[in-house]
Amino acid sequence: MNSLPALNYDAQGLIPAVVQDAANGEVLMLGWMNAAALAHTLESGQVHFWSRRRRALWRKGETSGHTLEVVEVRVDCDADALLIRVRPAGPTCHTGNRTCFYRRLEDLAADPSVETGA
Amino acid sequence: MNSLPALNYDAQGLIPAVVQDAANGEVLMLGWMNAAALAHTLESGQVHFWSRRRRALWRKGETSGHTLEVVEVRVDCDADALLIRVRPAGPTCHTGNRTCFYRRLEDLAADPSVETGA
Repeated sequence: MNSLPALNYDAQGLIPAVVQDAANGEVLMLGWMNAAALAHTLESGQVHFWSRRRRALWRKGETSGHTLEVVEVRVDCDADALLIRVRPAGPTCHTGNRTCFYRRLEDLAADPSVETGA
Repeated sequence: MNSLPALNYDAQGLIPAVVQDAANGEVLMLGWMNAAALAHTLESGQVHFWSRRRRALWRKGETSGHTLEVVEVRVDCDADALLIRVRPAGPTCHTGNRTCFYRRLEDLAADPSVETGA
């Protein structure tokens, strides 16, 4: 791919990227990409995100080793969300869970590991 | 559920919600919820979103009939994204496709139906 297609980035220049395990369909995480993160992802075949908190580009797994190898990148009808189908190397979540969506909503209040509030 | 758990809504009071077909794992769409949309979703068992463009609450399928019945709501590790597992009634995308993610990124530039810009 020589040039990036026109996507509808938000006011911060970001687009949400849903990450799905290509082998079993499990939704692993939702991350944010800017144009540079998407370009790095397409060029390297390894998922890169923009960290809104750290305001930095990062390659998923660069410290943990739990990288995400790109199988396919899909885009939605109005081009403001991406779906990245991947082969994960190890658990995706920093908690050690396979997916970041490891809790049901009704169990959230009871879970002491919850990180909410700003 | 009597009270809503604390979620990390963004500066606009919104949280992204990934919608997945509970039967086959297909990712159908990504929508946005505010607290009211989530409350309506949990109370009715039908997925509601906040339309950022129309600035209005809407029940998915309220005009098309292509509703999304909630099977399970999951939340991610830092409580700033939701995963809604559903039983869809008909195609989810307004284009008539089963999923909004019906195109590969590399096919986007060639697709005249793309709605980008703005």
